[in-house]
Amino acid sequence: MATFSVRSPSIPPAQTSPTNTPQRLIRFLAKDGRTYYGDAILPSTSTDLNAATRARIIQGSPWGPHTISSTTAEIQHLLCPLARADVPTVRCLGLNYAQHAKESNMPIPQYPILFFKPVTSLAGPYDNIPVAPLAQEGEGLDYECELVAIIGKEAHEVSEADALSHVAGYAIGNDVSHRDWQIKRGGGQWSLGKGFDGWAPFGPGVVSSSIIKDPQNLRITTKLNGETLQDSNTRDMIFGVAETIAFLSKGTTLLPGDVIFTGTPQGVGMGRKPQVWLKDGDVVEVSLEGVGSCINKVEFAKSKAKL
Amino acid sequence: MATFSVRSPSIPPAQTSPTNTPQRLIRFLAKDGRTYYGDAILPSTSTDLNAATRARIIQGSPWGPHTISSTTAEIQHLLCPLARADVPTVRCLGLNYAQHAKESNMPIPQYPILFFKPVTSLAGPYDNIPVAPLAQEGEGLDYECELVAIIGKEAHEVSEADALSHVAGYAIGNDVSHRDWQIKRGGGQWSLGKGFDGWAPFGPGVVSSSIIKDPQNLRITTKLNGETLQDSNTRDMIFGVAETIAFLSKGTTLLPGDVIFTGTPQGVGMGRKPQVWLKDGDVVEVSLEGVGSCINKVEFAKSKAKL
Repeated sequence: MATFSVRSPSIPPAQTSPTNTPQRLIRFLAKDGRTYYGDAILPSTSTDLNAATRARIIQGSPWGPHTISSTTAEIQHLLCPLARADVPTVRCLGLNYAQHAKESNMPIPQYPILFFKPVTSLAGPYDNIPVAPLAQEGEGLDYECELVAIIGKEAHEVSEADALSHVAGYAIGNDVSHRDWQIKRGGGQWSLGKGFDGWAPFGPGVVSSSIIKDPQNLRITTKLNGETLQDSNTRDMIFGVAETIAFLSKGTTLLPGDVIFTGTPQGVGMGRKPQVWLKDGDVVEVSLEGVGSCINKVEFAKSKAKL
Repeated sequence: MATFSVRSPSIPPAQTSPTNTPQRLIRFLAKDGRTYYGDAILPSTSTDLNAATRARIIQGSPWGPHTISSTTAEIQHLLCPLARADVPTVRCLGLNYAQHAKESNMPIPQYPILFFKPVTSLAGPYDNIPVAPLAQEGEGLDYECELVAIIGKEAHEVSEADALSHVAGYAIGNDVSHRDWQIKRGGGQWSLGKGFDGWAPFGPGVVSSSIIKDPQNLRITTKLNGETLQDSNTRDMIFGVAETIAFLSKGTTLLPGDVIFTGTPQGVGMGRKPQVWLKDGDVVEVSLEGVGSCINKVEFAKSKAKL
């Protein structure tokens, strides 16, 4: 039994991760019908967490006292890697890849462009993306594959050199966006068009920063109904993860469980000619090297908007 | 002993608030040295929660099963009315008073302008406003008095007519803002210049919607070092609380404990001639009729920014 966070003198920690987190944190519905946090066990043939069929059960909260049990459970279905109550704040960066800033006809930002999503936007790697009646108004339903960093240790006024030691690990997420509500109808603020329920799916789990030591050299892609529409590498980020965390920690305390979407590369639907908007039933797959994929189907609500 | 939320058939609810919340929810450090949620007991001479010296102790979380004890405790110091873990998301509206939109040289918005603050921005009614080195860069440290609505019951696709039944109650808050970081250095997104630690003080407590039945007829003011700089009434809001909640619930689930800052009236420092910016040591008092005041001192950190 590996011990984390609670450092009882009688039970020495069996794994000495710098962030006291599991190596491959997942949350899952098990075949026994219960929901667990787990440390996924990968087959030798894959580094994608989607390939895991079993996990060691984690007892407790990933940010509170917990132990990783030697008992394993069989995975029925992967859930959002973090329960809503374990995520204090969801931060996102805009225009953080040079080629994406270019396709958006925007200048390279001088500072990270920060916005937030509500915790209700969080969803799992196989959840449908619900499109409510309001989000069916206008046009511009779009995908954005993004490397997601999860804070594992409180960060306040940290240096860039120290920043990655505050990261629990990395996941892949889709910053689902509605361009009309984001840009034309939100008074200039992106929150409305990016904050709907389930519009921040991420997963399939959180691969520890002790495994992914360099988050700036990972292939990141989006496939729409099987066709590759985004294909880039995190080395093209304008503000890398370390610089982002150092900057965001200025005057702000980043808390364990905070989820940071770090921006999307070129190839979003808005930037294509002709533009590509998501439709009811479309399947979007966002993938990150060494982590795996989120595969989410677009699901339009049947009722009409009442404005 | 009044029973809330847990409806045991053997213990009938003693108070039938539509939102199952205390009448005057506060969180406080008691003279016994412990921190409690409480239902404040007001002297007959005041409706301001600041005047309370005792409160009935609430056992449990305000959004979970809890009871309001007949035992009272003496108030030493009022804290932020909600613990950080009891607030899923902090939402805010911009440009929601007609006169404020005018002083900002902005058109009346067609839809509510939504942005978010992180839970780390929450602070108590007497806490200092910390101004980190980064927020001392540039100029434009400003105050914004705002009516704050706290969600008491989950709201999803609710009608305007039904919206107020989802409100636990109301407080007064200060949407502290740094105009340079908000407007010039944030890439157009307001998050950075409004999201620093402690920049969303609110309180002094949450007055139940069963007491404040009409949130659109309350005087709201700001005093800076004793001088009144904002003096308006919530009837001048463009989108009232009910309309705001109905709109925000479209495609989004508002959760119990969600905090909504509903925008500020005219008279902010940015809109004055000459402009007025907060300085180290300034005392800002924001007040709402029937609720009370938040009185917060501006406290500049001594170290320098490293950009």
